[in-house]
Amino acid sequence: MAIITLTTDFGQKDHFVGAIKGTIYRELAEVKIVDISHTIRPFNIQECAYILKNSYKAFPEGTIHIVGVDAEPTVENQHIAVLVDGHYFISANNGVIGLIAAEIQPEKVVEINIPNPIHGSFPVLDVFVQVACHIARGGTLDVVGKPFTELKDLKEFAPRITENGNSIVGSVIYIDNYGNVITNIQRSLFEAYRNGRSFTLNARNRKITEIHHKYSDLINFELDKNQRKGPGDLLALFNSSDYIELAIYKSDLNTVGGASTLLGLDYRDTIIINFN
Amino acid sequence: MAIITLTTDFGQKDHFVGAIKGTIYRELAEVKIVDISHTIRPFNIQECAYILKNSYKAFPEGTIHIVGVDAEPTVENQHIAVLVDGHYFISANNGVIGLIAAEIQPEKVVEINIPNPIHGSFPVLDVFVQVACHIARGGTLDVVGKPFTELKDLKEFAPRITENGNSIVGSVIYIDNYGNVITNIQRSLFEAYRNGRSFTLNARNRKITEIHHKYSDLINFELDKNQRKGPGDLLALFNSSDYIELAIYKSDLNTVGGASTLLGLDYRDTIIINFN
Amino acid sequence: MAIITLTTDFGQKDHFVGAIKGTIYRELAEVKIVDISHTIRPFNIQECAYILKNSYKAFPEGTIHIVGVDAEPTVENQHIAVLVDGHYFISANNGVIGLIAAEIQPEKVVEINIPNPIHGSFPVLDVFVQVACHIARGGTLDVVGKPFTELKDLKEFAPRITENGNSIVGSVIYIDNYGNVITNIQRSLFEAYRNGRSFTLNARNRKITEIHHKYSDLINFELDKNQRKGPGDLLALFNSSDYIELAIYKSDLNTVGGASTLLGLDYRDTIIINFN
Repeated sequence: MAIITLTTDFGQKDHFVGAIKGTIYRELAEVKIVDISHTIRPFNIQECAYILKNSYKAFPEGTIHIVGVDAEPTVENQHIAVLVDGHYFISANNGVIGLIAAEIQPEKVVEINIPNPIHGSFPVLDVFVQVACHIARGGTLDVVGKPFTELKDLKEFAPRITENGNSIVGSVIYIDNYGNVITNIQRSLFEAYRNGRSFTLNARNRKITEIHHKYSDLINFELDKNQRKGPGDLLALFNSSDYIELAIYKSDLNTVGGASTLLGLDYRDTIIINFN
Repeated sequence: MAIITLTTDFGQKDHFVGAIKGTIYRELAEVKIVDISHTIRPFNIQECAYILKNSYKAFPEGTIHIVGVDAEPTVENQHIAVLVDGHYFISANNGVIGLIAAEIQPEKVVEINIPNPIHGSFPVLDVFVQVACHIARGGTLDVVGKPFTELKDLKEFAPRITENGNSIVGSVIYIDNYGNVITNIQRSLFEAYRNGRSFTLNARNRKITEIHHKYSDLINFELDKNQRKGPGDLLALFNSSDYIELAIYKSDLNTVGGASTLLGLDYRDTIIINFN
Repeated sequence: MAIITLTTDFGQKDHFVGAIKGTIYRELAEVKIVDISHTIRPFNIQECAYILKNSYKAFPEGTIHIVGVDAEPTVENQHIAVLVDGHYFISANNGVIGLIAAEIQPEKVVEINIPNPIHGSFPVLDVFVQVACHIARGGTLDVVGKPFTELKDLKEFAPRITENGNSIVGSVIYIDNYGNVITNIQRSLFEAYRNGRSFTLNARNRKITEIHHKYSDLINFELDKNQRKGPGDLLALFNSSDYIELAIYKSDLNTVGGASTLLGLDYRDTIIINFN
């Protein structure tokens, strides 16, 4: 049976998520519903796209992803259903799908056009659930919409190459649960310009000259415990999504702090890598 | 197979919800468990009732709703199981079911009376789960309890009509994830007294003369973007539950604020509508 | 079909949990995944063990528990899979399993050793999910690892008996969602030394001479409401896990406070019981 995922800014407390799940189960008793996240910051398209990009591929092909962020339809924010990379996304055309489909050409994009739509303030329930159940039953996108070509293309900051290829100027795209700072610099880009050279990564007033592959690579386990680096120390690594990430080893935002709070880095702040 | 929903104030972190789900699955491997909310404010009957009222109908008839708020049985807080509107509720008689059943006569109410009950501090696990599994297996309420007629009736603030029908004095019943302020004034009541007249809604020192049907109705998309209303502007709408709601367009309580913080409105505060 | 539970410090927002669930469902369409908690404090082994100890037994025997806290493998933090008390645990050897298996001898402990492991920063996805799916398919621990005997044994504070058996010196092991303070003093230990004597429990400057069995035992319902104890009053009880717990009746950490905030008690603080 199909899987329907939910990614929303509805929060954990209100009735919205319960109402959506009840409605889906009333339509399709055997579908599987998976919460990806309900704590996207309200109306934050970039956060929503980041979380979806890094989770949707884990699901089987054919999975249906409902995007419940900034979902009210307007003349500038059409309801769309998209097949891309073997996955279905149901969303408003607010930029989330544009960001996900930036590197992969969608197989099909339709503007949703269902009979007798309810024009209320809860379109995720009134429209997206209907479309998701239609697809879960094996229905095609052609039945619920008409071809659409104007996928909104948010100008997301891309890293810039400067100084004749001797510098990469990136920026922060996400802060995770541990306060880890994720940059928009991908490993492939970094390696393409590095060419075996040494480098310095500048984040605020901190300089880093090594990028690890996991957090504990910071620690030299051959040293005595009191001589090792450890909790509280800064490192950079290629994270599990292959972005360069800054982290404090064993951080906790509620106690010792994380890279975001200790370095004072927020969304959109600049990270510079200079090659020597 | 049956659906069992959970609405509690247990929070997201502790072992309580996991223990309940494990116990249910041990009894009934094939049941479907749906979390409605676990972040009801502790012992907050009104919040719990609001969230349940606005979500239970989405589920198929026959769904079993466990209410894990203020659940310890006392001589004044009996354990009850109720069939109302085609749905089963298992709860303490703390007012939640009275609020849900205020407008719909319950088909059956029993005081739970199971053999060898455990008199501990976790009755949701020890008693409610047993009763829920009994119903999920097709059992009747008569087997788990005896008829009960004293459903607690919380005097919830109802809107008052004053000035010979020229004013409605309502109050705030809920603040949602976006800081939207939900009042106890339903669309049907408003329209019944409005009679086509113009009106002014007074919330603190703000006056509103229009009630929309969705958030983006605030925006005139024919204007240039810099001439339009937009994020940060106040509106009123009939929300998806048909209550009058005050909202800040694209609000975020953690950044720009929401209607609750920007207007300084909290649970129980007064909202007045004057018809002209 | 098997149940896989998740207990992590990944938080509610990031893509980690969604990616894990997607990967499991891609492997095993019919498995049941249950979230125990994703809001363990980062890297907090004691919290993780407390929550798992108090929930795992509720699940059917054969359930597979993935422990996603401090999971990076190092020479000092091996990946292990354990069969104990009829349940499977997949974890790093960081002390969580040692704490769970402190009183029950594990039936089998292996160090995980799968072919072509990914050495990245997301081992819960790359390793634990593979092992969990192997077990869920009916596979044995021998296939995924080799015998292991060095289960890390965290020196968790145990209550001390002093004054020739006239005092128990315990400490706080957990603060729950209501601000209730859970001590490490179990009912069986308390009763073994009490021997029918009266006693005084000292918590900061408060003294308690009675231990209840449920919260509402504090209230004498035969008194008039204005003469009774009630919300805001302190009590001690044997909680549903049979530990001595201090609670404020109908507490709410966001409004009136709980025992932890009102008494100023935190994790590791001392609680003393003197027998008379």
